[in-house]
Amino acid sequence: CGMSPAGLPPASLLALAAAALAVAAVAAWRRPRPLREVLFFPSPPCCLEALLAEAPARPCPCPLPRADTSLSRLVRRLLSARRSLDLCIFSFTCPQLARTVHLLHRRGVRVRLVTDAQYMGLPGSQIGRLRRAGIQVRHDQHSGYMHHKFAVVDRRVLITGSLNWTTQAIQSNRENVLVVDDAACVKPFLDEFERIWEEYNPANYSFPKVGH
Amino acid sequence: CGMSPAGLPPASLLALAAAALAVAAVAAWRRPRPLREVLFFPSPPCCLEALLAEAPARPCPCPLPRADTSLSRLVRRLLSARRSLDLCIFSFTCPQLARTVHLLHRRGVRVRLVTDAQYMGLPGSQIGRLRRAGIQVRHDQHSGYMHHKFAVVDRRVLITGSLNWTTQAIQSNRENVLVVDDAACVKPFLDEFERIWEEYNPANYSFPKVGH
Repeated sequence: CGMSPAGLPPASLLALAAAALAVAAVAAWRRPRPLREVLFFPSPPCCLEALLAEAPARPCPCPLPRADTSLSRLVRRLLSARRSLDLCIFSFTCPQLARTVHLLHRRGVRVRLVTDAQYMGLPGSQIGRLRRAGIQVRHDQHSGYMHHKFAVVDRRVLITGSLNWTTQAIQSNRENVLVVDDAACVKPFLDEFERIWEEYNPANYSFPKVGH
Repeated sequence: CGMSPAGLPPASLLALAAAALAVAAVAAWRRPRPLREVLFFPSPPCCLEALLAEAPARPCPCPLPRADTSLSRLVRRLLSARRSLDLCIFSFTCPQLARTVHLLHRRGVRVRLVTDAQYMGLPGSQIGRLRRAGIQVRHDQHSGYMHHKFAVVDRRVLITGSLNWTTQAIQSNRENVLVVDDAACVKPFLDEFERIWEEYNPANYSFPKVGH
């Protein structure tokens, strides 16, 4: 009397059912929420000193608003990097984003930057400045463009979209940036980055023969 | 005798526990797999006749391979549209993609196309051809670019990335296209599309005053 068909006392069965439901609920609750952020541009000019100042600084005296904007959100995402930042950026002229990348480099984050050979030499390009700061930069050697505009933070978070890292694009264009962390999206971009990084290794550059 | 603490016979409790587990398993199994496709370019030239021919056609005599390429995958995704295709494309010169959009229009899919005012007039642009085919097109009136390159299929699938719809970009550039269907990504792009579609309503165009 008091034993169930499975040979267990009924109270154990009730506990078993409750435990199964509890495990399912905890598993659903503990699964980290996937990261999905969409940023649209243009983004109004804003002061990023509070994010980018290296020492806790006095409040910046500039008249720009310290608003939460698409640009400030993008900068925050980049600044979350602790170990690595892999960048594939077609056109890079925005001083604020260059400062962000430089800051990460000084913090010891491993920054690798791939860019387009034709655009890196244009006026306003931040590539030379970043190179002089010691950041590794590689570029294509093709007539086609290295037209990607993506970043991978800590090999875990993908930031991609239509936005070139230019002040013109940030302040004047209709643009989008998508931030996601699911591996099915991130992994192909990491692989593409590694493919390009190797392909653009300076050891592989070819130089036209120069006559005497 | 034979009743559990909850007042149910033990067999019922066992059945209850089994049912709870079965429901959880079926729920996990039936959850549609999220769509995550990443396409990289350049994509080699390929024959798309098998996809784009309106009547079941004889095999195309052209010498191009009928390979599975990033371009053919992009075309397939677009051709999956049954009700609507919302397009925001900065530069649109690729005849194969124009043919894809035109085909959907003729099938009765509601196509809306937003593009950039400066780029739509450049040589090779497909915008005029699509307009003449009866497709609704709207464009900006700004000095900044309408630089988005995204499509939403049936308000459910987002196709976005760095790729302009140009043969140059498809065949020569390093580019990416991401295809996703989770609402947290799709919804903001749908909202952005509707915002732009209204903002670029010709009723809102302003024209410079012309002197006499």
